[in-house]
Amino acid sequence: MLRLYYTADTCSLASHIALNDAGAEYTTVRISFAAEEQRKPEYLAINPKGRVPALVTDRGVLTETPAILAFIAQSYPKARMAPLDDPFRLAQVQAFNLYLCATLHVAHSHRMRGSRWADEAASIADMQRKVPESVGACYRLIEDSLPAGPWVMGEAYTICDPYLFTMAQWMEADGVDPARFPKVSDHRRRMSERPQVRATIEEELT
Amino acid sequence: MLRLYYTADTCSLASHIALNDAGAEYTTVRISFAAEEQRKPEYLAINPKGRVPALVTDRGVLTETPAILAFIAQSYPKARMAPLDDPFRLAQVQAFNLYLCATLHVAHSHRMRGSRWADEAASIADMQRKVPESVGACYRLIEDSLPAGPWVMGEAYTICDPYLFTMAQWMEADGVDPARFPKVSDHRRRMSERPQVRATIEEELT
Ligand SMILES: N[C@@H](CCC(=O)N[C@@H](CS)C(=O)NCC(=O)O)C(=O)O
Ligand SMILES: N[C@@H](CCC(=O)N[C@@H](CS)C(=O)NCC(=O)O)C(=O)O
Repeated sequence: MLRLYYTADTCSLASHIALNDAGAEYTTVRISFAAEEQRKPEYLAINPKGRVPALVTDRGVLTETPAILAFIAQSYPKARMAPLDDPFRLAQVQAFNLYLCATLHVAHSHRMRGSRWADEAASIADMQRKVPESVGACYRLIEDSLPAGPWVMGEAYTICDPYLFTMAQWMEADGVDPARFPKVSDHRRRMSERPQVRATIEEELT
Repeated sequence: MLRLYYTADTCSLASHIALNDAGAEYTTVRISFAAEEQRKPEYLAINPKGRVPALVTDRGVLTETPAILAFIAQSYPKARMAPLDDPFRLAQVQAFNLYLCATLHVAHSHRMRGSRWADEAASIADMQRKVPESVGACYRLIEDSLPAGPWVMGEAYTICDPYLFTMAQWMEADGVDPARFPKVSDHRRRMSERPQVRATIEEELT
């Protein structure tokens, strides 16, 4: 059975929602950032990167949100969460998720994890000040490229949806006004009404 | 026909090599960073992100290196550049490439593109000083996880190989001593001997 290592309020929510969307059978293990469990030897033995999410399968451990999401889509094809047989559409799905992972999430990380990339307190404060602008620029690009909806890829719900929803939960804390991005905000509301999403968030909070 | 927008000595080399590995028919357009062509309206009309690579297909434009690499693998299945029908192995391939994209490449970018994430000259200098350490930590993780070879995934050449090779070209400039990472260095040498790789580099330089 699949086992998801997650922390509430982090990017692991996307994989968690996708598991519920797919109707997968899985168990979870909560990793406490407050207790720095992600850096303890027990967890590093599972994911040497010291990050969540990690998905343990019977063949080994997977990491990296877009890879985990695609794995879920391909493992549960009946849930139709990605255009698996259309290389172009699938690459569009992956490109969207890659942008979230390598540009938006990275911009956001400069608020809480600046010490990955600089040492001085003043540099880290400077990074924090720039987050509203750099994260805001990512949402500008996303907003301008989103189709009418209801989902990121248009009519079909895909693995892009739980991931955008997860990132969008951080907008306010990143100093980005959701009102500037009506399509992203609509998407977030629509996602938050899905029973799978509500159930996942409930599960993470209790 | 496919059209690749690239800049020499950048991450677009990975997609360029993969196109040659796949035996794809394609044309190229060179984007000059010196002339800031990546920020000109003509290019932003193709890729609003203002980055390379961009791959123009007859159905639209694709961006994000791991998405482009997977697209090439799926579009040219005879070249066998990814374990397309094995969700777990494919996710391992993608997770490797995601780490290059969202962690290693991002750490490297703090040397030349610090102004994405901070404003003050002192912060940007601080970021630059940390690059040998942050990029070096990525190579430590990669080195420790690489199999005996000859390729990133073991016996089979995949889309991980041109990407790791491309990143590894930057080690010296990033202040990382290749001698600390013998498996990565062996891989780099092995890649540099492949005729497709030599031809691609030649093409980018002339
Ligand atoms: N590229 C990875 C990033 C994973 C990541 O950075 N996760 C954060 C939570 S959102 C984390 O585990 N941070 C813990 C730390 O930096 O100590 C992915 O997309 O899955
Ligand atoms: N996540 C993108 C990153 C693309 C990227 O940052 N490319 C760099 C070259 S390695 C670029 O175009 N930089 C130009 C700039 O920042 O102006 C990918 O993996 O393709």
